[in-house]
Amino acid sequence: MKELVFVGLGLNDEKGVSLKGLEETRSADNVFIELYTSLMPDFNLQRFEDLCGKKVTLVSRRELEEENGIAILLAAQKGKTVFLVPGDPFIATTHVTLRIDAEKKSVKTRIVHGASIISAIISLSGLHNYKFGKTVTVPFPENFSATPYDVIVQNKRSGLHTLCLLDLKASEKQFLSVNQAVALLMEVELKRREGVVTLDTPAVGVARAGSKDPTLKADFVRGIVDYDFGEAPYSLIFPGDMHFMETESLIAFAGAPAEFRSLAK
Amino acid sequence: MKELVFVGLGLNDEKGVSLKGLEETRSADNVFIELYTSLMPDFNLQRFEDLCGKKVTLVSRRELEEENGIAILLAAQKGKTVFLVPGDPFIATTHVTLRIDAEKKSVKTRIVHGASIISAIISLSGLHNYKFGKTVTVPFPENFSATPYDVIVQNKRSGLHTLCLLDLKASEKQFLSVNQAVALLMEVELKRREGVVTLDTPAVGVARAGSKDPTLKADFVRGIVDYDFGEAPYSLIFPGDMHFMETESLIAFAGAPAEFRSLAK
Repeated sequence: MKELVFVGLGLNDEKGVSLKGLEETRSADNVFIELYTSLMPDFNLQRFEDLCGKKVTLVSRRELEEENGIAILLAAQKGKTVFLVPGDPFIATTHVTLRIDAEKKSVKTRIVHGASIISAIISLSGLHNYKFGKTVTVPFPENFSATPYDVIVQNKRSGLHTLCLLDLKASEKQFLSVNQAVALLMEVELKRREGVVTLDTPAVGVARAGSKDPTLKADFVRGIVDYDFGEAPYSLIFPGDMHFMETESLIAFAGAPAEFRSLAK
Repeated sequence: MKELVFVGLGLNDEKGVSLKGLEETRSADNVFIELYTSLMPDFNLQRFEDLCGKKVTLVSRRELEEENGIAILLAAQKGKTVFLVPGDPFIATTHVTLRIDAEKKSVKTRIVHGASIISAIISLSGLHNYKFGKTVTVPFPENFSATPYDVIVQNKRSGLHTLCLLDLKASEKQFLSVNQAVALLMEVELKRREGVVTLDTPAVGVARAGSKDPTLKADFVRGIVDYDFGEAPYSLIFPGDMHFMETESLIAFAGAPAEFRSLAK
């Protein structure tokens, strides 16, 4: 069957995939994987091949973005092809073009979802999902702009939390740290003075969501800026207005100081 | 070991769980499950028990919300206890109290994430994750208020998409349909006249995200209001400003009419 199935790998390691994702992979004629749109710190390709009993072809950013994933498309025109992607397959927008190209060539596409960093971080923090505004990525210093700061301002004005994904180059093992991200945002604060990223602003840093030992630390920015979060990947939340159940969650699960209670509205 | 592990079941059926979620369940002394915070249409408890080789105790809304999950807490104070929850365990805020209570009783808690309806719907639609504003739930007519309408207005003013979760009572098999939700929102439109839910507004209805045959239909509201989405569960997206890749995605994956191209900004 001419078919391209996008399978989400979920988080952290080769056992983040769902049972149905593994079944689809086992029954495929061709299996491809990319590991650059997100970091799965404990993922081992050999162990995954042993799990699914298939040879898995690693495709690079260049092959996907410059050559439009032509090898995957050609395989999918011949038989059932699985493309494994970290997290949930289309939360990063990278592979939408491949899916559109496949449908244009009359290759049916399907998605097997996986746990995404987006819902995992919200879930870990205990902050309420429906109180998050727009999500933003904080880029490396060389590409930095005031956009993430503007998003935080816009969300805070509406009382909403901001989830900041921190930029990464997984293949080059480069990760923007929580500490760097906070420092970059504080530089914008010095110019803009909206009061959304000061030393007294509450924030939550997260490392290795989806692993067995995620680090969560909620504190005022003064306590976050030098905090050691350990290994990557990282993300960062700037809470907006908090319900008392949210401040209690941050105290119970993220080591927030007791003063957080006074932030509850 | 005194431990309470919240395991996400992912979407739709018993094979939505991750390999690590299944492993945690297999090695637990006690296993509980709830199936009321979300609908998993093709989930069968007997088949899941066969998969994990454990007796799984179904807990009701009453036991969790009125009796604070005391049976689960007592089990977790004696040995490793797994609590299985649809989707990602804390995307619905229902179980945060149980987690806080466990930590207060010195029971360690961990989370094994699962695919969430939130990321699945975004992933299926091809709309860009970072362009979604606040998420909202549209309640049944008896609890309806203008809040969901207000959220759509607020998001649209910022050019953002709105994900509307549609209310459900999974145990009673009651589901707010896409058609009903659109009709309720249009009633508010008649009074408020902000122009965000008219017959000419683009919208995307989704049914059975995470199943093998999800229904996606993008159209102007006039084409959505009578569309047959089949079986539950349902959700609904009101797009804000769209990039041309987003309109192309809706045309390719959600049967949007070609006029959607003219909406791209």
